[in-house]
Amino acid sequence: MTRTTTASLDEQNGILFAKLAAAQPRLLDVLPAGEAIPGFNAELVLHAGPPIAWQNMTPAMQAAVEGALVFEGRARDLAAARRLAESGTIRFAPAHDHQATGAMAGIVTASMPVFLVEDEVSGERSFCTINEGLGKALRFGANSPEVLNRLGWIRDSFAPLLKQALRLKGPINLRALVAESLRRGDECHNRNKAATTLFFREIAPALVETGAPHSDIAAALRFIAGNDHFFLSLSMAHAKAVTLGLERDGVGSLVTTMAGNGREVGIRTSGGGPRWFTAPAEVAQVRLFEGHSVADATPTMGDSYVTEAIGLGAFALAAAPAIAEFIGGTVQGLVARSEKMRTITVGEHPAFLIPALEFRGVPSGIDVRKVVASGTTPIVNTGVASSRPGAGQIGAGVQSFPLACFEAAVSALD
Amino acid sequence: MTRTTTASLDEQNGILFAKLAAAQPRLLDVLPAGEAIPGFNAELVLHAGPPIAWQNMTPAMQAAVEGALVFEGRARDLAAARRLAESGTIRFAPAHDHQATGAMAGIVTASMPVFLVEDEVSGERSFCTINEGLGKALRFGANSPEVLNRLGWIRDSFAPLLKQALRLKGPINLRALVAESLRRGDECHNRNKAATTLFFREIAPALVETGAPHSDIAAALRFIAGNDHFFLSLSMAHAKAVTLGLERDGVGSLVTTMAGNGREVGIRTSGGGPRWFTAPAEVAQVRLFEGHSVADATPTMGDSYVTEAIGLGAFALAAAPAIAEFIGGTVQGLVARSEKMRTITVGEHPAFLIPALEFRGVPSGIDVRKVVASGTTPIVNTGVASSRPGAGQIGAGVQSFPLACFEAAVSALD
Repeated sequence: MTRTTTASLDEQNGILFAKLAAAQPRLLDVLPAGEAIPGFNAELVLHAGPPIAWQNMTPAMQAAVEGALVFEGRARDLAAARRLAESGTIRFAPAHDHQATGAMAGIVTASMPVFLVEDEVSGERSFCTINEGLGKALRFGANSPEVLNRLGWIRDSFAPLLKQALRLKGPINLRALVAESLRRGDECHNRNKAATTLFFREIAPALVETGAPHSDIAAALRFIAGNDHFFLSLSMAHAKAVTLGLERDGVGSLVTTMAGNGREVGIRTSGGGPRWFTAPAEVAQVRLFEGHSVADATPTMGDSYVTEAIGLGAFALAAAPAIAEFIGGTVQGLVARSEKMRTITVGEHPAFLIPALEFRGVPSGIDVRKVVASGTTPIVNTGVASSRPGAGQIGAGVQSFPLACFEAAVSALD
Repeated sequence: MTRTTTASLDEQNGILFAKLAAAQPRLLDVLPAGEAIPGFNAELVLHAGPPIAWQNMTPAMQAAVEGALVFEGRARDLAAARRLAESGTIRFAPAHDHQATGAMAGIVTASMPVFLVEDEVSGERSFCTINEGLGKALRFGANSPEVLNRLGWIRDSFAPLLKQALRLKGPINLRALVAESLRRGDECHNRNKAATTLFFREIAPALVETGAPHSDIAAALRFIAGNDHFFLSLSMAHAKAVTLGLERDGVGSLVTTMAGNGREVGIRTSGGGPRWFTAPAEVAQVRLFEGHSVADATPTMGDSYVTEAIGLGAFALAAAPAIAEFIGGTVQGLVARSEKMRTITVGEHPAFLIPALEFRGVPSGIDVRKVVASGTTPIVNTGVASSRPGAGQIGAGVQSFPLACFEAAVSALD
């Protein structure tokens, strides 16, 4: 790499960081993926992480696909759904390649409602499905009638009501919610408690003002209130809208996405466009919940690491000391790991501040060159899914993305 | 003081601290002060701080009394209310002497709705009026028709609806809300943002389930959502319920109350019962908001310092770094002042934890002997009211309670 190229990349990264820092993603609407996402159709199934063929998917991801095809009415039962998936009729693609993100298995099909988020500054639009809550959920590969019934309720009752409320209320500024949530102990990836409660407060009066039956409104409120991770979908869509703006011009060397499909992890960069730089997925060395072992664990899976690409999640651990209760370790240790990210980033976010660090901004904008030069890889907060479909989350913690992804991205710069 | 007495006080304080640490205050009901508070009657007006006669009250407190008497229908206008207050018919008493607490002027009259909080462990009951919100409010001495109309809406619409919702939902565990709010950056005195939002989330579904007209429910939700200090009343009642338990047996040397009436400040102790140990109130040396000077300031007024008596407020600043934006100073400076309180307290609260300090409990249970021996006086978070009735809050920050109160309390031990 010549000196000129380096200087030019630095300049490009500076401009990109300014875009990242200025972005104003807002929640505009809730509507079916098939209507919301450009180019979507009934044959398309989105999944988390870099591209992967059906036969290579983890059991949890395959089970989620099967459940989704039954949910869509494309198959009368799970066995039929499996045959359909194997038949080659269905096109599988990364959610990230369609302006979308998906948690864990990340399956998105046409009738699933998604949040529509738009960056008011760049005009970029992004999408994310609605978090189903704890326990048995499609994102972990659960696909029982109970799971599909809940998806049906989300589609037929919850999402339409939320849509009405949003229409009454107008767009919700997600940047402001994220900023305030960092003041309230969230990092907006593995801890979304304050953000979810703030979102609840924002939307509740408008839900009431829809005039819908009291029981429907109460059910919607209880659904949001009952899931401390409800905001994660919005945080992911927020980050995706920001990073889409960074990918548009195909310049610079900033990370725009980190994701996993359970077999491979991959990153994308501002200069690399839709190209994925991948490496084998590994089981995260994190705290496994009581009664589980590494043998039960699915390697890195999900799109939620896009939050780290803009300085949230593990990059903002210093704002979220209470997370240590959940993921283990000492607070000081977590803060130290998080603060080390300043060595591989290009700036400090002007709105996402860490009160405990005298309101210093989170480290933001990962430069793949800095990663490779220092050997310091980005950390991400992660949840570990069981390898048994539907068994759910069995661990949580902080892990590093593999250096190989960043080396490949740097090579592509030359 | 003999060695035996000291040992005995230490033992008593140990037992008291265990009570403080075990308390489980819950919100049970909302009802008019005249029904809720034992011995209340139409001639009684409660105020903040230690006892004070009408003619000695600050202009802001007098104005609040006048507004309250009009609100109660005891006088047709403010001038008539003033004559009534001067007439000697009305009995003035500290809210603290009637199991209650009041913010700023702290006026409580018979028809004002109060929260009824009960410590499930000790059975002690406490009360606090509902926070009226920002801007012009009776607690700052505002008494215009706008203010009295809002009090009327609180009495006639909001409180009855909240009561219905509480009946549907059952008691709300305030200890749990406080504990979680400390994980979310509150200290539950000057910062109640997370606690208010959590309370909102707790009560919203039940408000909807009352089946009341949508517009009434939406108005109630917007009222809570629109006031980041809504929870302060609950935090005060919570602390009062805890400290009433400490006063019951008349033993030990722990502070149970710190309060001000704008002329005098006073403390009460576990061993001193209802006796107040007072000193002249001073203007807090805190950050005054833009455009205000010390000449505008009312000396220490309000009952909310009862929160510090159990380890919240200024004793929990390390949990609430974002408060530095509001009250000024560096976060590290605030944390250092807060942590110094460990030298005058007898324990660390087992449920009120500070994540950033590796989940160490807040310093709790102020021993007046430690205060006097060390010369380190308790700090409190405070809001400064304008001396012009109704002009509202003109500053905020951290102040110390005067040593003289604690010296008097120690003398009384001998």
